Amino acid sequence: MSVALPMPLAIPLVLICAGAALAAEPRARDLGIPFDFGAPGPHNAITDVKGVEVGHVTLIEGKGVRTGVTAILPRGKGDPARQPVFAGHFSLNGNGEMTGLPWVEESGLLDGPVLITNTNSVGVVRDAVIRYAAQHWPPPPGNDWGWTVWSLPVVAETWDGGLNDIYGMHVKTEHAFQAIDRASGGPVAEGNVGGGTGMVCYEFKGGIGTASRVLPAKLGGYTLGVLVQANFGLRHQLRIAGVPVGAEIRDGLVRTEDSGSIIIVVATDAPLLPHQAKRLARRAALGLARTGSVAGNGSGDLFLAFSTANAGAGGSEGIVPLQMLPNDRMGPLFEATVGATEEAIVNALVAARTMTGHDGRTVVALPQDKVRAILERHGRLGR
Amino acid sequence: MSVALPMPLAIPLVLICAGAALAAEPRARDLGIPFDFGAPGPHNAITDVKGVEVGHVTLIEGKGVRTGVTAILPRGKGDPARQPVFAGHFSLNGNGEMTGLPWVEESGLLDGPVLITNTNSVGVVRDAVIRYAAQHWPPPPGNDWGWTVWSLPVVAETWDGGLNDIYGMHVKTEHAFQAIDRASGGPVAEGNVGGGTGMVCYEFKGGIGTASRVLPAKLGGYTLGVLVQANFGLRHQLRIAGVPVGAEIRDGLVRTEDSGSIIIVVATDAPLLPHQAKRLARRAALGLARTGSVAGNGSGDLFLAFSTANAGAGGSEGIVPLQMLPNDRMGPLFEATVGATEEAIVNALVAARTMTGHDGRTVVALPQDKVRAILERHGRLGR
Amino acid sequence: MSVALPMPLAIPLVLICAGAALAAEPRARDLGIPFDFGAPGPHNAITDVKGVEVGHVTLIEGKGVRTGVTAILPRGKGDPARQPVFAGHFSLNGNGEMTGLPWVEESGLLDGPVLITNTNSVGVVRDAVIRYAAQHWPPPPGNDWGWTVWSLPVVAETWDGGLNDIYGMHVKTEHAFQAIDRASGGPVAEGNVGGGTGMVCYEFKGGIGTASRVLPAKLGGYTLGVLVQANFGLRHQLRIAGVPVGAEIRDGLVRTEDSGSIIIVVATDAPLLPHQAKRLARRAALGLARTGSVAGNGSGDLFLAFSTANAGAGGSEGIVPLQMLPNDRMGPLFEATVGATEEAIVNALVAARTMTGHDGRTVVALPQDKVRAILERHGRLGR
Amino acid sequence: MSVALPMPLAIPLVLICAGAALAAEPRARDLGIPFDFGAPGPHNAITDVKGVEVGHVTLIEGKGVRTGVTAILPRGKGDPARQPVFAGHFSLNGNGEMTGLPWVEESGLLDGPVLITNTNSVGVVRDAVIRYAAQHWPPPPGNDWGWTVWSLPVVAETWDGGLNDIYGMHVKTEHAFQAIDRASGGPVAEGNVGGGTGMVCYEFKGGIGTASRVLPAKLGGYTLGVLVQANFGLRHQLRIAGVPVGAEIRDGLVRTEDSGSIIIVVATDAPLLPHQAKRLARRAALGLARTGSVAGNGSGDLFLAFSTANAGAGGSEGIVPLQMLPNDRMGPLFEATVGATEEAIVNALVAARTMTGHDGRTVVALPQDKVRAILERHGRLGR
Repeated sequence: MSVALPMPLAIPLVLICAGAALAAEPRARDLGIPFDFGAPGPHNAITDVKGVEVGHVTLIEGKGVRTGVTAILPRGKGDPARQPVFAGHFSLNGNGEMTGLPWVEESGLLDGPVLITNTNSVGVVRDAVIRYAAQHWPPPPGNDWGWTVWSLPVVAETWDGGLNDIYGMHVKTEHAFQAIDRASGGPVAEGNVGGGTGMVCYEFKGGIGTASRVLPAKLGGYTLGVLVQANFGLRHQLRIAGVPVGAEIRDGLVRTEDSGSIIIVVATDAPLLPHQAKRLARRAALGLARTGSVAGNGSGDLFLAFSTANAGAGGSEGIVPLQMLPNDRMGPLFEATVGATEEAIVNALVAARTMTGHDGRTVVALPQDKVRAILERHGRLGR
Repeated sequence: MSVALPMPLAIPLVLICAGAALAAEPRARDLGIPFDFGAPGPHNAITDVKGVEVGHVTLIEGKGVRTGVTAILPRGKGDPARQPVFAGHFSLNGNGEMTGLPWVEESGLLDGPVLITNTNSVGVVRDAVIRYAAQHWPPPPGNDWGWTVWSLPVVAETWDGGLNDIYGMHVKTEHAFQAIDRASGGPVAEGNVGGGTGMVCYEFKGGIGTASRVLPAKLGGYTLGVLVQANFGLRHQLRIAGVPVGAEIRDGLVRTEDSGSIIIVVATDAPLLPHQAKRLARRAALGLARTGSVAGNGSGDLFLAFSTANAGAGGSEGIVPLQMLPNDRMGPLFEATVGATEEAIVNALVAARTMTGHDGRTVVALPQDKVRAILERHGRLGR
Repeated sequence: MSVALPMPLAIPLVLICAGAALAAEPRARDLGIPFDFGAPGPHNAITDVKGVEVGHVTLIEGKGVRTGVTAILPRGKGDPARQPVFAGHFSLNGNGEMTGLPWVEESGLLDGPVLITNTNSVGVVRDAVIRYAAQHWPPPPGNDWGWTVWSLPVVAETWDGGLNDIYGMHVKTEHAFQAIDRASGGPVAEGNVGGGTGMVCYEFKGGIGTASRVLPAKLGGYTLGVLVQANFGLRHQLRIAGVPVGAEIRDGLVRTEDSGSIIIVVATDAPLLPHQAKRLARRAALGLARTGSVAGNGSGDLFLAFSTANAGAGGSEGIVPLQMLPNDRMGPLFEATVGATEEAIVNALVAARTMTGHDGRTVVALPQDKVRAILERHGRLGR
Repeated sequence: MSVALPMPLAIPLVLICAGAALAAEPRARDLGIPFDFGAPGPHNAITDVKGVEVGHVTLIEGKGVRTGVTAILPRGKGDPARQPVFAGHFSLNGNGEMTGLPWVEESGLLDGPVLITNTNSVGVVRDAVIRYAAQHWPPPPGNDWGWTVWSLPVVAETWDGGLNDIYGMHVKTEHAFQAIDRASGGPVAEGNVGGGTGMVCYEFKGGIGTASRVLPAKLGGYTLGVLVQANFGLRHQLRIAGVPVGAEIRDGLVRTEDSGSIIIVVATDAPLLPHQAKRLARRAALGLARTGSVAGNGSGDLFLAFSTANAGAGGSEGIVPLQMLPNDRMGPLFEATVGATEEAIVNALVAARTMTGHDGRTVVALPQDKVRAILERHGRLGR
């Protein structure tokens, strides 16, 4: 096999930013696919959690470049390195990479943004975040810069080497910078965008998906949002709304084993401590399971959850006052996590479009009409 | 509140042993409920894994005694303490007890049987296993008995304090002995038996359930079995065969929060190392999720998986020869775990019968006709 | 071998309560043994942490009964089940039992007391705590007693089967009750008391030991205390104050392999979250290492740390206000944990007395004069 | 602060390779410092484990470049990606990075080499290993390259931002390549070399250290080696041979808090399964503790252990025959790990030389004469 080492590309990459032309495309709910466990927020997106921003850099160029970077900023671009969030993670199947986890586990804190890209670009993106932080989020005055500063970014990946020329190493430092700079609240582009550009899910075209839930006021009124980079699953496993859709749509199969991955990020404004965030991260697995996954051996199924409450979580002096949602009140958040994760995955499938890429491979989009017909036949189609 | 301390019961407890009158009762498959991921073994039970034996002691007496003990013997009664199995565990939600886990995690070994009972009886059963082992499985000759012997039994529980007079502490040492002594291969009684006697699942009567899968010969031909003690879930969460059955059957509700638990034991004859057994244990969560659970805060969702291969796993001298199934070949076992776990839970629901117990509380059985009608309406009823 | 099943003992057991005649016995510091990392509190004991109470029941009877129970009550006897503490654990070598860990890990909470006994009595003590809690710490009004109540006690053990007739099962429900009832603040009896009665440490007589550290006011002024039940180690490994004492005192050897265990409990009034308590638990391993241990294969080295701050940690309604010590300020607590753990172990060795027990075995006490002479020769003896 | 983005350096970096002039420099044992737990192998280095190779690239240039890369190849350069080793890890304090851990944990396998560098260069080194693997270790024939290939390198770091211009990002792809290419067996350079070039330990100059133990034939005759990149600790904590040396040598202090880190890699030819390798990784903490560390909050104390036995560990087809050392026989390996880790750290201190670097900071070497004098005074100096 021939491995292309990185080289300057003659033609500038096409950079497609988040937010473009979102209105026109139906999402899973718009197709009448039903989901459980409460109502979504205004954008049905992780950005419904106040402060959370998402930015995509999409690299589609020539015959083989089909990749990108997605950035999630838990508290926006203001000052993330100094205002970390409580966080926790879960590895359902660790055939993947998410850097920075030892410190998340130890400190209970997620400092800075979460970036998601392709497998071979985790390193360049990780180092880029350190550079970006040094430029934009210097430590507070009085800190002895020479001796200690945050430099343990969280960068995750899934493998797009089917559709993308992954050994071309097309993701560069500036793409990571751009993904962060473009991050914003509001609607989030889904499907073939950002880190999800070249991904494959249940042997349909996959990518980025998102969804949210808002709890009733009497349960706290909290918002919980999920973003996935979906790149996993064998066709026959796929269930949508509980219906074994994958068993009925047998064309366009591309995988012989479950070698993909899924990164799931859960955000909430409920005041959770780190060990409680970890509880949410585990529930992401249950939402994933509802779509049919068995977390295949080749799948890097790594989940991260964080809470934007407790602005002082990262304090380094004195005694930090905090708030905590009691464990006894977490049940509705568990349901929200399961429901929003399931929906985010289906949203990724619905949004993604058929793509031809590296080595001429093609992966087809989920055929929405067929899915609707199958759900209707099973009495599961809304509206 | 008044807590009844244990006292001799005037009337002998009714002890119902496993295996009685199994043939007459339909199981989930018999009702036409479809399940995924392959075909079951001859008994569709954990005992399809050669050597695995199950024994129940069921305590139903008077108005309040509704409890029992279930024993699973990975290698039968022969010599389990000297022939441990490789094992691994996973805690999806740790609101429960499974003793012995530190040694399972450290050594990769499960020594002796696994017993499951009610929450308040874990201690008496645990100490009973130590006594039983001392009588039946003494250490090999040459071992300095005075200084070292196995005494870290694995005993798990779910809480039957709704239907059972749990503070009556009705489970005694002899019941643990009997559960082990009665253990056998072949069909396994389900529903209101053994440790599952007083359990509640999705607000229907729950209890013991089991199922199995046999892999095709080209995938190794391995058998994988699951046994659950199901005592969890809120009605509205229940999905059967992907159909939201719980949303439609709204009578007989008994819980306001998800305070139950589920113990899941996965057995296989595939040659798995301890870290691979742990991988199976995590997949049990995915099977659970397919029935609708979100692993509620009050739920003790503790899973254990073991492999009966590698008879010498517990060797203490020389170098032990082993066999390992490569990770790359585990995918079919993951599917089997997910499928058999889902089916075992539904089997528990199907087998359990309406019960009235402590304080006159009643929990109704799953209405099989209604379930069949709902599945038929959704085009999901087989046969 | 013949295993004696439990039976009523003809002669009442001698119950020796904590606190008796403590003043007369020198502790490690009194012998001039130096310890690092700050100054101890008034009692140099875990009870220096305000609210923490310790109770022992010591069972010494006839030729073979050499065992007992030690209870640690994080917030005293008042209302522990309703006022849990934040806690975390670490298993350095899991050849032992500590029940209740899945819920400590999941919830971040330690409800109720911690009891320590011998290996074969973990069950009876565990169930006893459930009974005790039902009698003394009923749930708050309004709670639906029938459906949910705390019943996951933390009970740990080490194996005293060398000196104690461990298969006699001499620990009974009432002993657990008594250990809790006798718990008090102030000085803590060490050596051959409570759960530590029959224990062996570096092949000297071991048992219970304790120590504490008080941080300077500028570092928060927090108190941290440690209690150990020490039953581990081979002689040649023993270091005291860094001096390889065990290599020089070669008489009275009783073990051929490292088959003991050590339970370490760390308490502090510093406001730590659960994941921070876990950080302390890991540091207990470092204090243990300074005495020479390598955490032998047969050793159950299980550590638990809790914080008595945040009285509302266990709240179940509304939003709970908390306080947190920033991670950046934990360094002095790490040193305190290491120093107090090392000292608690040596205190156990210093306090324990030569004992003859089951099957006529004798384990000798640490020869204080020899140890002092060795330390003096190495320029390590204070005063 | 000004962050220098990477640019071509005008002057070629001085690349110092491993193995140069090793004979002349005394190591800790040569100074008479005693160590426990058995005898070292011929090189007293991790390379005493057959097949293990180590390569350093040392970057010292101008006033500010003081960094490098160290590569450890578990099975040499032949075919590591296709012949992984069983491995396990432990995070004593997770304030650091070691990429690739989710897959080590999941699969039990370490594929490819382990590289260690500075914090800000983990990314570039990680991606470099993927490129190197693609060029040198392509998948076996028949593998569908387009869809699955190993790309989860293990790269760890400690922070050299005191002596090194860490934001200059001076480590490049080619340095990672060179570290791998130079790897060899035999003596291993220590101190200011490779990834350890700019490191600081107990406020003395630190860096790379290594040591080994060979078990007596009757205990299996196994070799166990340790390599550390030591960059941690406050002076007052330092113990050498149990003697509180750090309390006596108070000049040249440079740290106000414990913000360093230590990476420890343990290798052995004993046939250990992944969960057993994890047991070794935990024991590295005990060796570290013997030098005085309390694993400070700012310290990234990440440990990895692997076994070079079981050449077929990474097999992907059929059933893999394996060998296992029983847990009961691991005790001597635990002692070897503790002893070799303690010695490797002291070796790093002894080998490192006073260095002046970035911003004119100077860190002094351990004064060997003073240390010898202090040990002699405490009766702890050999020879």
